[in-house]
Amino acid sequence: MKIVIDAFGGDNAPEEIVKGAVAAVNSESGFTAVLVGKADVINSLLKEAEYDKTRIEVINASDVITNDDIPTDAIRKKRDSSLVKCFDIINSDEEAAAFVSAGSTGAVLTGAVLLLSRIKGINRPALAPLLPKIAGEGQVLLVDCGANAECKPLNLLQFGVMGSSFMNAVFGVKAPKVGLLSNGTEDKKGDELHKAAFELLKENENINFAGNIEGRDIISGEYDVVVADGFSGNIALKACEGTAIGMFDLIKKGIMEGGLRAKLGYLLLKPALKGIKKKMDYNDNGGAVMLGLNKIVIKSHGSSKAKSICASILQAKQLHESNFIEKIKAAMGN
Amino acid sequence: MKIVIDAFGGDNAPEEIVKGAVAAVNSESGFTAVLVGKADVINSLLKEAEYDKTRIEVINASDVITNDDIPTDAIRKKRDSSLVKCFDIINSDEEAAAFVSAGSTGAVLTGAVLLLSRIKGINRPALAPLLPKIAGEGQVLLVDCGANAECKPLNLLQFGVMGSSFMNAVFGVKAPKVGLLSNGTEDKKGDELHKAAFELLKENENINFAGNIEGRDIISGEYDVVVADGFSGNIALKACEGTAIGMFDLIKKGIMEGGLRAKLGYLLLKPALKGIKKKMDYNDNGGAVMLGLNKIVIKSHGSSKAKSICASILQAKQLHESNFIEKIKAAMGN
Repeated sequence: MKIVIDAFGGDNAPEEIVKGAVAAVNSESGFTAVLVGKADVINSLLKEAEYDKTRIEVINASDVITNDDIPTDAIRKKRDSSLVKCFDIINSDEEAAAFVSAGSTGAVLTGAVLLLSRIKGINRPALAPLLPKIAGEGQVLLVDCGANAECKPLNLLQFGVMGSSFMNAVFGVKAPKVGLLSNGTEDKKGDELHKAAFELLKENENINFAGNIEGRDIISGEYDVVVADGFSGNIALKACEGTAIGMFDLIKKGIMEGGLRAKLGYLLLKPALKGIKKKMDYNDNGGAVMLGLNKIVIKSHGSSKAKSICASILQAKQLHESNFIEKIKAAMGN
Repeated sequence: MKIVIDAFGGDNAPEEIVKGAVAAVNSESGFTAVLVGKADVINSLLKEAEYDKTRIEVINASDVITNDDIPTDAIRKKRDSSLVKCFDIINSDEEAAAFVSAGSTGAVLTGAVLLLSRIKGINRPALAPLLPKIAGEGQVLLVDCGANAECKPLNLLQFGVMGSSFMNAVFGVKAPKVGLLSNGTEDKKGDELHKAAFELLKENENINFAGNIEGRDIISGEYDVVVADGFSGNIALKACEGTAIGMFDLIKKGIMEGGLRAKLGYLLLKPALKGIKKKMDYNDNGGAVMLGLNKIVIKSHGSSKAKSICASILQAKQLHESNFIEKIKAAMGN
């Protein structure tokens, strides 16, 4: 099994991407990492690393797509970019089962939609990050967090189907509890789109639909899958993220301004606070998965360092073994 | 000036509402509190309280609207409910400048839309809470957080106009910085609604428009007004709230499970953590204001206790003195 990695995507590319790939092959067996990008740069970074040389392939791509590029233009015109090359490999090499990128979200999404094949019956792929649960163990899958700014009711139903199959296949969750993100918990809440999606989700016998949920319920621990249109799903994700980061900033400020007493208190509370930070920092556990495609696509955070990239690569391997794509196909009646 | 208060709205009504009103008249002069609801109950609660008897009026209303009522039905049929009676007083008594309720949000919004008069030119009133800024002083106004699940571009423009006038009138913010809540910061981000709203906000010379912002930017401290459609604005608000509450829960859990060391650390860090809790708990500073009406309407949190109700009543007085409604009228060319 090959995992294709965009070595030139992300704020810390290529150094941290290459380091992450080396760390991944050194920590688990059973896959080959394919690093795509300027081969001379990648090779010189690999030269100093210690790893099983048979397990990292380097494929040259002379161009790079950045956050400043317009995604649709870049995907169409930069045919020799590391990103487009990755998609080419995914399409042409049967062994290439997964793709990992920390590059421009827009370009990864656009490229995946334009260049990769979709699961039969799925109208729109969705980007789905795994978020921490405040109470209880495990994680909650948010589908969609930004691939589709405009959605139709059928898209939201399919997000529920894919999310349920994913949580079942990957984490063994039986009858994953699905909530529809809306502006209130009552059955009749929401705009026309969400009211119609509510009915479709409710009628579907393969979904354990728990009804409408609010923004505060996403990471509460009550739900396994949260279905959202990509516009409000993105806003919700960033709002949770921003508040969590902001609160750590406030705690830090409180400690700095609280004198010796607060600093001493911090030292004693440090293990507990570190545990919380680790729990809330979901990026360290891998990237967001794109659901609805025939191959595994993982989008790591743009600011990913080696640790996150390594986590995303190992996540790709785990996802491959879970056979979640086959489970989605089965749920779609394929 | 009279402030009309729904004494039977909210989880802790009528006890905490009455207590809050007493606290408010005892702490500031210059207004009369009008408590509306079952008069015998209110009077017996007031009997034991100490305050200037000329400053609290009681008006009887025999019925109550609860969260279980369907808002439109309840407003139309429960004519003798405390909520509908409050709107009647607001409409008939010129001295009644403001209304405070901790009751059903749906019923308060529906009642205000159906029964109160709008500022000329405003198509849709909006519910606007003041949120803490993580960095810097002051607060940020989120318009709309749930009054309008379906919006048109013009509504979003008017939310920007009203929010700017409000922040200028109430807090003296010069040229309030306005962001449009979207799924990314680039100019072309968003669905059709938000793309069109972006253009309207950009063209308007009276708005200091800073472009699209993400969920993480809402409480960052960068912006004074965040314009949102009521659907995603509600989701964003609840996501911020849920994450903040969830993190306090995690800290509490970490302290409880961290043994003596963590408990000692907590005691030392307590002042700093309490400061953060106070900053993040925006409900203690008053309620959400409904913008676009000819009178002041403040919606307190459903779980408000006396402290929050008192804060909302004093906020009503402050808002009245700020003349923000006149400023909105001026901005609308009235």
